[in-house]
Amino acid sequence: MMTSTQYSSAYQELHRLFTRLSRFDHLSAISGWDMQTMMPPGGNKARSEALAELSVLRHQILTDRNTGELLDRAQQETLEEIDRANLREMRRQYDNAVLVPDSLVEAKSLAGARCEHAWRTQRPANDWRGFSVNLREVVKLSREEAQIRANALGCSRYDALLNLYEPGMRSSDLDRIFGDLKTWLPDLLQKVVAKQQQEPCLIPQGPFDVDSQRKLGLSVMAMLGFNFDGGRVDVSAHPFCGGVPEDVRITTRYNEKEFLTALLGIIHETGHARYEQNLPREWLDQPVALARSTAIHESQSLFFEMQLARSADFLKIIRPLIVNQFGEQPALAEGNFIRLNQRVKPGLIRVDADEVSYPAHVILRYEIERALIEGEIEVEDIPALWNEKMLSYLGLDTTDNYRNGCMQDIHWTDGAFGYFPTYTVGAMYAAQLFHSASNALPNLNQAIAAGDLSGLFQWLQQNIWRHGSRYSTETLITNATGETLNPRYFRQHLENRYL
Amino acid sequence: MMTSTQYSSAYQELHRLFTRLSRFDHLSAISGWDMQTMMPPGGNKARSEALAELSVLRHQILTDRNTGELLDRAQQETLEEIDRANLREMRRQYDNAVLVPDSLVEAKSLAGARCEHAWRTQRPANDWRGFSVNLREVVKLSREEAQIRANALGCSRYDALLNLYEPGMRSSDLDRIFGDLKTWLPDLLQKVVAKQQQEPCLIPQGPFDVDSQRKLGLSVMAMLGFNFDGGRVDVSAHPFCGGVPEDVRITTRYNEKEFLTALLGIIHETGHARYEQNLPREWLDQPVALARSTAIHESQSLFFEMQLARSADFLKIIRPLIVNQFGEQPALAEGNFIRLNQRVKPGLIRVDADEVSYPAHVILRYEIERALIEGEIEVEDIPALWNEKMLSYLGLDTTDNYRNGCMQDIHWTDGAFGYFPTYTVGAMYAAQLFHSASNALPNLNQAIAAGDLSGLFQWLQQNIWRHGSRYSTETLITNATGETLNPRYFRQHLENRYL
Repeated sequence: MMTSTQYSSAYQELHRLFTRLSRFDHLSAISGWDMQTMMPPGGNKARSEALAELSVLRHQILTDRNTGELLDRAQQETLEEIDRANLREMRRQYDNAVLVPDSLVEAKSLAGARCEHAWRTQRPANDWRGFSVNLREVVKLSREEAQIRANALGCSRYDALLNLYEPGMRSSDLDRIFGDLKTWLPDLLQKVVAKQQQEPCLIPQGPFDVDSQRKLGLSVMAMLGFNFDGGRVDVSAHPFCGGVPEDVRITTRYNEKEFLTALLGIIHETGHARYEQNLPREWLDQPVALARSTAIHESQSLFFEMQLARSADFLKIIRPLIVNQFGEQPALAEGNFIRLNQRVKPGLIRVDADEVSYPAHVILRYEIERALIEGEIEVEDIPALWNEKMLSYLGLDTTDNYRNGCMQDIHWTDGAFGYFPTYTVGAMYAAQLFHSASNALPNLNQAIAAGDLSGLFQWLQQNIWRHGSRYSTETLITNATGETLNPRYFRQHLENRYL
Repeated sequence: MMTSTQYSSAYQELHRLFTRLSRFDHLSAISGWDMQTMMPPGGNKARSEALAELSVLRHQILTDRNTGELLDRAQQETLEEIDRANLREMRRQYDNAVLVPDSLVEAKSLAGARCEHAWRTQRPANDWRGFSVNLREVVKLSREEAQIRANALGCSRYDALLNLYEPGMRSSDLDRIFGDLKTWLPDLLQKVVAKQQQEPCLIPQGPFDVDSQRKLGLSVMAMLGFNFDGGRVDVSAHPFCGGVPEDVRITTRYNEKEFLTALLGIIHETGHARYEQNLPREWLDQPVALARSTAIHESQSLFFEMQLARSADFLKIIRPLIVNQFGEQPALAEGNFIRLNQRVKPGLIRVDADEVSYPAHVILRYEIERALIEGEIEVEDIPALWNEKMLSYLGLDTTDNYRNGCMQDIHWTDGAFGYFPTYTVGAMYAAQLFHSASNALPNLNQAIAAGDLSGLFQWLQQNIWRHGSRYSTETLITNATGETLNPRYFRQHLENRYL
């Protein structure tokens, strides 16, 4: 029985406070989703202002002196382990937020919305000049934020931002991990490309009408366990997974000329979605129920897209669904279809990249965004640097091709500096998790080939999804795999699949 | 030049406060729209809680003692006429809100969301028992609110709610207006039905595929001047016009068997939408820019749907758009098409009713909801009363047909008692406005027949839309038509068109 003393404890008060904040976050998330999927252009200014107003309100409530006092008092109270984890996450949100003044929160929100919205038309128009004006403002505010955080944490500006996405990770860690990658990946990439040049690979001939692609996507989402009672899939300029755990909104974009990009995009976002849909339901309004980190989130999407969906066993079971929509053709014959989905071919677009060349895209962005935040380069230096690195890492020329060069993503438009590295860290976690799942589930390959994914999903549910933010990333991964981040599994995976 | 004194005036502070509130309203409106058009069922609980939280927040900010003090101080300041009107509307919002405690605001919001959401499945299942459980809770809370307001205003409970939708109107006014209607409308209805029985009228044969209906709707919206840069049309269980003036969201529902209901619904909502889209843009974040009242809002939708769209001249110009989508057929020949759209036939569904039998639907709901709020009847008495009145007013039997009887609308589900009468008052304003527009625009009929609606829309823009809430309803209508509400024009209109 709850006593009134319990109800009036500092922790209980914080519990109510964070429930309230999560409700505001709900409205932000849905209105933000709407902005990218449904909103007509004329709504942008009013929507941006409304979202900025709510983010300021959230910030004010969270950073109120009263919150700090409650956190200090709750620290002294006797709490269950899960409540203590929740309190730790509350404290982390508070500590992150209290450093930044309301005015900067509002300015960042407005500048990000302006930059992202203009990007939607500037990208197709290849308008770097117009885009860079808005981006400069976003960078200026992000540097300001980074400096404030760096002063408080006693670290570099970039590390201070990285810490928001992957708590505890530093650029020295990334330098080590990416440094190692750079010693073996270019060589692997070359070998794989050379090997695949010997193998014929047919390209499916379209057109593939959008409605059939949509139906195909829905059937694959169903196979992957997406809960349609608590989510949906729509179209946006840049695919994402948004909404709230009770109502997850994923998006894709269709192209009548080919269907694999949209389909693999849907599988990727479904990985994010299942994580969100399976966070601990009884804790959903509390910080402890949030996804652990960006890298862990990406590990789930890449687990689905790369580890699972590009495996020969899985490709065999989705092939009939594809043929069902588009009919048979030589490119969809089993052998060719598998080769097609495991084809390694350096390209300009990160989200369309194969898993061998993907890390090069991430390292490129990491190196540029770190230099940008540290003040070593300016926005106008980006295109030249981009060209240079793209040529060096992937042998591709992007001169004057801003649209498919430095304007291809939306991460920088709203100041999400520090996010990119988590994709490759996530890919590494995905490989490590799949390795452990394979050990725990001896007949995994046969089960997948038979279309039975339940064991695999149960393993993810047991080891990742249901824990939310209860444990640190390190503990979560150690509990699941027996060790902390070990890039060896990623290399092993790539060599096994592609050599 | 603005001086710092001006900036720190009480009125300026209120201006900022109401800007903030309008941004919260923006997020409520979009999330509310999403709830009815996009949200999967599993999102309902979390969404309801999030919206209730924001409505409580809004209520807290609005009714803060500081707001009351600012209003008193601003009253003493020297203000332009438009600012004074704005201050009057701020005061009205404050006075309405301050009477009701936060807890009741939250409880009403939650009970309404629960009742509306369950209604979506209960209506198709004809489940009155299940529905009445939720409705009882809504009625209980609405009575509570009505009592509080009645005590403060010194009026009846029902009048206190009516005042929220049509400021200044009382049930004694309605009794007079509806009493007069009842003396001549049944007779007119009978005559028209008898007359039309002599005229053959073919029904268009479907199916009419949804995609073509959607395209037809879009083309008619374009003809009616809907601004697609600031709005869109979607599907919901009950058609409505929502969103915000910068981004107006209208909805309809399609039925493959016939297309006129969806089309006329779109035209109706486009009338609402054009009002919203043409409210004074430079004042959009302030109370003075809000639509004047529910009756004036309905006058615009009925102006579009009834006065304009069912006129022979307009029907002639949209006929080609329809034929363009569905091809020619005898029922779409000009003469038959006009008869079809001017056909008077008492039916069970209010939103599908012709304009002659429509007032009977409204009077029925008015009489029931007033008795319900005044405590003269209970929720369980509704079906019997509904049957009795439907039989008496329209000669139709609804026994056990809850779905198409008392469960057909959503107004009561979220406690919008006092709204229904404004439909018929709106229809009367629409007739009065159309009469004045015809006088002001001597060649109006020829212009409409030629597809030139610009003069008509300009007249509405000049006389209604651009004024928002600057004037009282009485002044607005007197400025536009030279007199206050005069039901004579409505009768004249019905007699001219139908006898």
